[in-house]
Amino acid sequence: MSQGNTAAAGIEQGACPVPPREILDRIAGKWAIQIIIASATGPIRFTELERLVEGISRRMLTLTLRTLERDGILERTVYPTVPPKVEYQATPMALELYEAMLTLTDWSRRHSASVARARERYDARQTVAV
Amino acid sequence: MSQGNTAAAGIEQGACPVPPREILDRIAGKWAIQIIIASATGPIRFTELERLVEGISRRMLTLTLRTLERDGILERTVYPTVPPKVEYQATPMALELYEAMLTLTDWSRRHSASVARARERYDARQTVAV
Repeated sequence: MSQGNTAAAGIEQGACPVPPREILDRIAGKWAIQIIIASATGPIRFTELERLVEGISRRMLTLTLRTLERDGILERTVYPTVPPKVEYQATPMALELYEAMLTLTDWSRRHSASVARARERYDARQTVAV
Repeated sequence: MSQGNTAAAGIEQGACPVPPREILDRIAGKWAIQIIIASATGPIRFTELERLVEGISRRMLTLTLRTLERDGILERTVYPTVPPKVEYQATPMALELYEAMLTLTDWSRRHSASVARARERYDARQTVAV
């Protein structure tokens, strides 16, 4: 066992993990961020997510949930009711991202007017330059 | 002037700002995150960014820089040398995002092996189910 345990080896030992850039791409999209925030405070159902994550299509929500579940960021629980009840919850690993993601969404809300003004200034400069 | 000053009115006063969801989309992409981190500690040149933001194409870097500059997230300075020297730096507004973005990139590095294992488990379950 010179290689050691793969699970314990981690990133440095070359356990052939997923490239960090690919992971950043998964967690840092606007949909993933909103889904992780919405599922961080307790289990949430598909229809609730569809309502909370404004602007997402049913297809994109389905795809994003599947990817996040596969990556171990969301846990999906199916209750054997009729019809089956399905709930999603952020895993402990994903909860480490919660505060940082709130910072990003909060920033986006607070700086809406500043971004609008920056765009006006930029576009005005472009017009002058042309 | 019953409407008041547009610049001072801000988000609550209905100054027609940019939707927060659109802003989140701009700042939360893997390229934007890496560019903001790279330009947060001081001015940085295009070629340095090209080297630091691993995997980005020249075209995508050009487009992302332009968008971030237009949104007031990056400041672009052109020095009248021959050839002209162009530098980018995160604006004070963007610096508020720095810690949160470091959290996201650091998380992506630390959890690489965990995500790989989660994927293996998920794919094994799918194979059983089929």
